[in-house]
Amino acid sequence: MSLAELINAVDTPIQTTQADALTQIQNDMLLSSSLWVNVALAGLSILLFVYMGRKIKDSRARLIWGATLMIPLVSISSYIGLLSGLTVGFIEMPAGHALAGEEVMSQWGRYLTWALSTPMILLALGLLADVGKGSLFTVIAADIAMCVTGLAAALISSSYMFRWVFYGISCAFFVVVLYALLVEWPKAADEAGSSGIFSTLRILTVVLWLGYPIIWALGVEGLAVVQSVGITSWGYSGLDILAKYVFAFLLLRWVAMNEGIVSAFGESTTTGATPADD
Amino acid sequence: MSLAELINAVDTPIQTTQADALTQIQNDMLLSSSLWVNVALAGLSILLFVYMGRKIKDSRARLIWGATLMIPLVSISSYIGLLSGLTVGFIEMPAGHALAGEEVMSQWGRYLTWALSTPMILLALGLLADVGKGSLFTVIAADIAMCVTGLAAALISSSYMFRWVFYGISCAFFVVVLYALLVEWPKAADEAGSSGIFSTLRILTVVLWLGYPIIWALGVEGLAVVQSVGITSWGYSGLDILAKYVFAFLLLRWVAMNEGIVSAFGESTTTGATPADD
Amino acid sequence: MSLAELINAVDTPIQTTQADALTQIQNDMLLSSSLWVNVALAGLSILLFVYMGRKIKDSRARLIWGATLMIPLVSISSYIGLLSGLTVGFIEMPAGHALAGEEVMSQWGRYLTWALSTPMILLALGLLADVGKGSLFTVIAADIAMCVTGLAAALISSSYMFRWVFYGISCAFFVVVLYALLVEWPKAADEAGSSGIFSTLRILTVVLWLGYPIIWALGVEGLAVVQSVGITSWGYSGLDILAKYVFAFLLLRWVAMNEGIVSAFGESTTTGATPADD
Repeated sequence: MSLAELINAVDTPIQTTQADALTQIQNDMLLSSSLWVNVALAGLSILLFVYMGRKIKDSRARLIWGATLMIPLVSISSYIGLLSGLTVGFIEMPAGHALAGEEVMSQWGRYLTWALSTPMILLALGLLADVGKGSLFTVIAADIAMCVTGLAAALISSSYMFRWVFYGISCAFFVVVLYALLVEWPKAADEAGSSGIFSTLRILTVVLWLGYPIIWALGVEGLAVVQSVGITSWGYSGLDILAKYVFAFLLLRWVAMNEGIVSAFGESTTTGATPADD
Repeated sequence: MSLAELINAVDTPIQTTQADALTQIQNDMLLSSSLWVNVALAGLSILLFVYMGRKIKDSRARLIWGATLMIPLVSISSYIGLLSGLTVGFIEMPAGHALAGEEVMSQWGRYLTWALSTPMILLALGLLADVGKGSLFTVIAADIAMCVTGLAAALISSSYMFRWVFYGISCAFFVVVLYALLVEWPKAADEAGSSGIFSTLRILTVVLWLGYPIIWALGVEGLAVVQSVGITSWGYSGLDILAKYVFAFLLLRWVAMNEGIVSAFGESTTTGATPADD
Repeated sequence: MSLAELINAVDTPIQTTQADALTQIQNDMLLSSSLWVNVALAGLSILLFVYMGRKIKDSRARLIWGATLMIPLVSISSYIGLLSGLTVGFIEMPAGHALAGEEVMSQWGRYLTWALSTPMILLALGLLADVGKGSLFTVIAADIAMCVTGLAAALISSSYMFRWVFYGISCAFFVVVLYALLVEWPKAADEAGSSGIFSTLRILTVVLWLGYPIIWALGVEGLAVVQSVGITSWGYSGLDILAKYVFAFLLLRWVAMNEGIVSAFGESTTTGATPADD
């Protein structure tokens, strides 16, 4: 019994953070609505996408569908993690930060789940443009590195400078992703015959993804021009709605209607598709 | 010296948890035997599987062997992590839980290592049934998501409801895996000529994997019908013995005896196998 | 306000560790120079490799280039994580250890980032030797397991014995990697026509990688024959310089000059390369 009490005393910090985060989120309408709206939309997207994908038979088209379906599935898990307080913490901002010395709520779970969902977006785009394995691998690796170094930027409480150093590294990885989306992959999409839908989705992705580092820089984690955790959270949530569910819907609708094209470009690259017997 | 003392004081919580967990495990025969038996059996499996795999030459058969061998290797690391107290924590159960307010030992390391070992099981099964890349990717992604959301369910201490919400999400991912194993993959195995062994392993996997969420629901982490950490741990350990080592043994024995069949189905999909010179 | 104060009190431990680590690193010239030198060299390597890779057009050669470029990119992120104190902690050594009861700085971030960078090294080597997918998968899985169990060995504070048990497991995974590099892959490289460069890089890798477990065993984390955190850190940093940047430079220079050979061995295996139209 005395051991249990000791453990109780010792473990309190971690437990308390989670419960405190839950309380703070529940008491902040702006903040909690920014999370619940994504749970609802991700849930609807999952049902819709499962329905839309039922008709897809081609092996490569199914791979694109599978990757696309993962986007709202990861997203709903991510937002429930934030809502429960599990993937939220309080960071005491270092000297130099506008909120230096204050405890700022950090939704660090976002970065972790972006490291899972954004590769799915790039995988779907890359398969759509029928790009080579080398390019797909490099871009996805850069994308994961972008999310992980973004997580590091968010978690650093020891030094204001190092927060921005990691921000800079994360942006450098982003440039690699942008270069592929703007310069390399459009050529591949032209050859694959999917340049129409690819260019729509590419513009959507490039414009929206640029929003994330801007929100970081202006929000509570960066320059704190916007000091409200709720507004910062709505910024990310709004981008997620467009860059994830709307993106995935447009992609899936095209794939469902153009299985023939998708099936055909399986011929020049390695896919799970059985070779066309020509 | 005063800095070191300060650090000492500050770091104590995390250190203490690990040492407390070690002590509690060592003093509980039921609990520690549930872990040691798996260390022993995983160790024996590794030796046996290395011996069994020596004769395998075909590239695709070697890939199945490699994936299968990873199962006991991940498992032995997992159980030693639990035994040392490193991947074990104490969760104060939230209001609503049968043990509300009490510190319950959570073997969270299990979920983390399942996220590594269960994809190997599905990879081996998928290769055996010669399924397409699209299906393999989707099922493995759903499986990893199942384990990660299961981890979230286990770690939440802020709200009883959110524990079950994550449990529900984890089960939803499980349904995707079940659908593939029961409906989609058997067809592929029929065509590949491996339906005999596939159907044995599939039934073994489906039946045993259903046991995990049942133990979670009845054990200390869920409804706490069973309130003993040791019995709950034995439940998981017993399932692991059958679903991992026995499963892997049956799979490997078949592959070692049927290299010809495995080698042949490399022809219709993309593998590392050099094309048969027919 | 009283909630914020409570959170402040409760969260202090984790925050303090990071700030303490930063202070201790900044006050230790030997330690901080061991980290900064790698940031500088990784940065130079990135610029150099991007420049060297500009001429590469072949799809398989670009995949090798992409994997190689990730090595210094992961490395620079890793070292900045250590410098900021984010991925550094203090471990109270258990009874039996030479520094038992003392707080020893553990650079645990190293193990985490090795789990990302060393697979890139093996991927580049495996592609260079044109090995089968089965072998590549097994070796990379063993390599990641080696890093993760190394991380476990470093983090255990509850028992001296379990530190060495994980050290032993990590070494067992290393043996799998060594076996592939010394016995299996040289044969594949012979057939692929890349045995000259492969054997240089293989010897470099085998000799240097053997250094890491030796430093662990002799340094502050193991037997503590060397009790200086700075010297131990320089040991790892020196190995990283040779095993990562020099390795990657030699590999990239060869690939840039031998695109024709790399392009040719795309024919017998599955790559993103469009089939040569012979």
